[in-house]
Amino acid sequence: MKYKEPDTLYLQKIGTTIKTLREEHGWSQEQFSFKSGLHRTYIGSIERGERNISVLNLKKIANTLEVPITKLFDFEI
Amino acid sequence: MKYKEPDTLYLQKIGTTIKTLREEHGWSQEQFSFKSGLHRTYIGSIERGERNISVLNLKKIANTLEVPITKLFDFEI
Repeated sequence: MKYKEPDTLYLQKIGTTIKTLREEHGWSQEQFSFKSGLHRTYIGSIERGERNISVLNLKKIANTLEVPITKLFDFEI
Repeated sequence: MKYKEPDTLYLQKIGTTIKTLREEHGWSQEQFSFKSGLHRTYIGSIERGERNISVLNLKKIANTLEVPITKLFDFEI
């Protein structure tokens, strides 16, 4: 485990939220990669909660998903 | 300029928001550094909008400031 447990859980919650929003658009990771400009494997690792994402990449993801960035934190811990 | 203009502005808005919240607590950067575990110079560069902050550091900052992480994005662009 690369991060402390609570941090890993936090990153996984963000990843799951992003995945859900992506699927609501009906996009594959490939399509999301094309639309966001982020590499597909990076998107996969984000959705699995393996990345300590930077705020500018979070903003890029939120913009692509057409949601406010705060929506990516819309989960219970 | 290290980042594209809109990104720089975005980071500056987050930095200003963090600075305002810190000052509302009446904390110096030094005190905030001690409470958060983040280095004082790093805090200074965040508040100046020079850092593409990671989400785990944003979470650490929000927890220290005793606000939800979404509060750090409470600004108009």
